[in-house]
Amino acid sequence: MSEKLAESALDQLFRTARTYNAFLPKEVGDEQLHALYELAKFGPTSANSSPMRLVFVKSAAAKEKLKPFLSDGNRAKTMAAPVTAIVATDHAFYENLPKLFPHADARSWFVGNQPLIDTTAFRNATLQGAYVIVAARALGLDCGPMSGFDNAGVDQAFFAGTTVKSNFLINIGYGDSSRDLFPRSPRLAFDEACLIA
Amino acid sequence: MSEKLAESALDQLFRTARTYNAFLPKEVGDEQLHALYELAKFGPTSANSSPMRLVFVKSAAAKEKLKPFLSDGNRAKTMAAPVTAIVATDHAFYENLPKLFPHADARSWFVGNQPLIDTTAFRNATLQGAYVIVAARALGLDCGPMSGFDNAGVDQAFFAGTTVKSNFLINIGYGDSSRDLFPRSPRLAFDEACLIA
Repeated sequence: MSEKLAESALDQLFRTARTYNAFLPKEVGDEQLHALYELAKFGPTSANSSPMRLVFVKSAAAKEKLKPFLSDGNRAKTMAAPVTAIVATDHAFYENLPKLFPHADARSWFVGNQPLIDTTAFRNATLQGAYVIVAARALGLDCGPMSGFDNAGVDQAFFAGTTVKSNFLINIGYGDSSRDLFPRSPRLAFDEACLIA
Repeated sequence: MSEKLAESALDQLFRTARTYNAFLPKEVGDEQLHALYELAKFGPTSANSSPMRLVFVKSAAAKEKLKPFLSDGNRAKTMAAPVTAIVATDHAFYENLPKLFPHADARSWFVGNQPLIDTTAFRNATLQGAYVIVAARALGLDCGPMSGFDNAGVDQAFFAGTTVKSNFLINIGYGDSSRDLFPRSPRLAFDEACLIA
């Protein structure tokens, strides 16, 4: 049985973690991006379907490729971020199920059922995107997730001719709390969002 | 700037955490469900939209209400779990934006745009469901998430006459690793799922 993590860890993961709009001028190494995936990959998905794909946009050339599809409010901060992860979804994820879920013929649950494919892909790739956010924080990195961009344009630029579609973006780096950090917005109280039945 | 969490914390959150099918006979107190929400609520959502709603199904009566809508493979383990969270989505989430996102008139971004409402609701409530899973682990609890159930039936039984729809379920308790714990399934390697561009 596990114990509750230290209060400082709960702060770092949730309570004092923030969505950053500006990052310190400090590189995020490729080895940290590997470490990030190697944690996040273990988060649970339906039938271990693991539909998330990640493009870590890091080079100047890749940033320029992304730039035209960013919304006005997200453009400057994203161009300045050390790394921008395109959290994407492989809608042919079920082709990997013979490897990922060897207990059963899970591939056959999906083939030909496009609504189930699309719902499963979206739900589970999004869960995995959240695991990436929390895993980044666990590694001492900070995030700035956003969904304000031209998905179709990003898909054409980065995923043309594939079964992969963009979901949302996460700027990743070391947050600069001295710049562009908004005050914490209120959250719904327990009784507004939850019921114990 | 944050440090990387202790290796033991990374294990507990991701590396050795598992999806449990059986739980020890140990109650999960209401105060723990409150603590769980009070962590998970801080995870980021688009425009702080916070569309997730949670019903913690804990009483025998509420479990019986849920029972007919569980898939055969999920029924017995869910009936036996200390708590089953219905992770749900309020599709009228934008009505809370004047309170949740006071910086801008974010409500007006959504009103009348049903595709944007539905995509934002599903994406962000699902992110929040993942925060619940990781927050539970951070508190020393274990999870068994699943999407195999009759969503329409659950919606009729628990959310009739509201704008809330079920998304997925999470059994919550203290995992019993001596029963019904499958071997860890393989994950995609970094190069199968990720690209550094």
